[in-house]
Amino acid sequence: LMQREVMAAPQFWNVGDTIDHIRKQGEELPELFFDIYVVDPQNHPVGGVAVSQLLRSPRTMALLDIMEPVNVIAVDQDQEEVAYIFEKYHLISAPVIDVAGRLVGQITVDDIVNIIQEENREDILRLAGVADEDRGSSVPEIVRSRVPWLAINLATATMGASVIGWFEGTIQHIVALAVLMPIVSAIGGNAGTQALTVTVRALATRELNSSNAPRTFWRELVVGLANGLVLAPLIGIATALWFRDEDWRIGLVIAAAMMLNLLVAASIGVLTPLTLSKFKFDPAVSSAVFVTATTDFFGFLIFLGLATLVLM
Amino acid sequence: LMQREVMAAPQFWNVGDTIDHIRKQGEELPELFFDIYVVDPQNHPVGGVAVSQLLRSPRTMALLDIMEPVNVIAVDQDQEEVAYIFEKYHLISAPVIDVAGRLVGQITVDDIVNIIQEENREDILRLAGVADEDRGSSVPEIVRSRVPWLAINLATATMGASVIGWFEGTIQHIVALAVLMPIVSAIGGNAGTQALTVTVRALATRELNSSNAPRTFWRELVVGLANGLVLAPLIGIATALWFRDEDWRIGLVIAAAMMLNLLVAASIGVLTPLTLSKFKFDPAVSSAVFVTATTDFFGFLIFLGLATLVLM
Repeated sequence: LMQREVMAAPQFWNVGDTIDHIRKQGEELPELFFDIYVVDPQNHPVGGVAVSQLLRSPRTMALLDIMEPVNVIAVDQDQEEVAYIFEKYHLISAPVIDVAGRLVGQITVDDIVNIIQEENREDILRLAGVADEDRGSSVPEIVRSRVPWLAINLATATMGASVIGWFEGTIQHIVALAVLMPIVSAIGGNAGTQALTVTVRALATRELNSSNAPRTFWRELVVGLANGLVLAPLIGIATALWFRDEDWRIGLVIAAAMMLNLLVAASIGVLTPLTLSKFKFDPAVSSAVFVTATTDFFGFLIFLGLATLVLM
Repeated sequence: LMQREVMAAPQFWNVGDTIDHIRKQGEELPELFFDIYVVDPQNHPVGGVAVSQLLRSPRTMALLDIMEPVNVIAVDQDQEEVAYIFEKYHLISAPVIDVAGRLVGQITVDDIVNIIQEENREDILRLAGVADEDRGSSVPEIVRSRVPWLAINLATATMGASVIGWFEGTIQHIVALAVLMPIVSAIGGNAGTQALTVTVRALATRELNSSNAPRTFWRELVVGLANGLVLAPLIGIATALWFRDEDWRIGLVIAAAMMLNLLVAASIGVLTPLTLSKFKFDPAVSSAVFVTATTDFFGFLIFLGLATLVLM
């Protein structure tokens, strides 16, 4: 990522000195550079001058008088962190320093663009349970990247299956409940994934941190409540009509269950990535699988539990 | 996005003329610029000179001798397209031309970084069924952005519910089938989402196009087959043991159903975004909802259909 070649100028130089040096040393300098880093005698960067700024200043102007503060990058800094700094401060290039603070190279924005794309690619694929593959991956590589998530999904899906197992008696009496389970599962899973994706994204862009996390949590709960107020009556009435020959109260049960499950979905969708992030795990990895398994578990538990209480 | 100020130089100038002009006209030029665009008498850009290149060249050198070809941007070009060009050619800035090919401004990479982030944010949120919201959105705005997708999800989930309705008799006889439905649904949905996400991402980065689409389709089918060969025996044996007191052949049925459903999931996951993209729709929008609804529909149909044939 870092380029070793860099255009550095001692802090006592003026514009004319710098231009003459560039003309003379042309061959040894980076092929393209956008900023000249001004360094003190210990080679610590003390400021930067954009090349266009140098060009428009009189030859007698001291570099110290036209330089701007620079955002320095530590040589061991995480590339995601570096991308964030470039984005936030609209940088074109930045000096890289070693542990002693000495200038050792530079990073330019064109490489940052690739890193941003790479990080985004990883986030989007991880959310879907695709570990690590690209267009060049072979079929065995792709299978190795996806099967583990499907297997984890298989394991977590047995949670939902177990819940249904507890209510076998109820289902045998009212088969309509089995018919409605995909709807419970779909709405819970989708609402949870919405909350999850928004949270993962806000963590990635650092708009979400520990100070505004409680507010985010409450906001998602309120959104869950509002979603429920819109959707629960809709599904309740449709279900009551659908099963009016069996028992119209099934509509009541699914409406109440959906209301509660949307609150569960909102909570799990926010808390899962926040917790992973707190313990320094990638919040995108495995979140979706866990969220949908949990909304299935609680969705079926609430729906079949309420049905047993009300209808049996 | 475009900046009107731009540093243009007539094609008959040399390096010295250009530097003198910049020194004199400093105030009227953009605050920062990275490339000088060389223009012909009709103000058409004919090449570009990086500022660092200008600095290191002798004053007597003609611009025509040091300039490089430039990638021009049309003033009405889609911003996603512009970001793609910057990324592909590692550009720092690019000249913008009007319909007559005349230089009217420039675009710099720091703005492109923001566009790339914005496009990625949109893709990732749309895949999850979140239309348009950000950290500043109010609760009503968020609800408006998410409820439509949940409602569509509700509608598509009734497809899966209907299939189960067709097999009410079978389920009443073998309630174990209802217990296993979340597993059928989870694996199909997850495998479909994996294929979908990889395809949407490849379309966004233009690695996938109509010429390599058939190859991608076949590759996903082979991956689906391989995933099935790994997972179907696993789930088949586990299910046979789980329900050994009722009917061990349920294991056989779910293994065969999972095998077939993974092929359906792979096909739907690839074909949905490809079809949307072919008809100029955003391949990310609504794909996930459609894919999981379809894998549910076929998953339940195959599973309950096979169960009826084999076990009843």
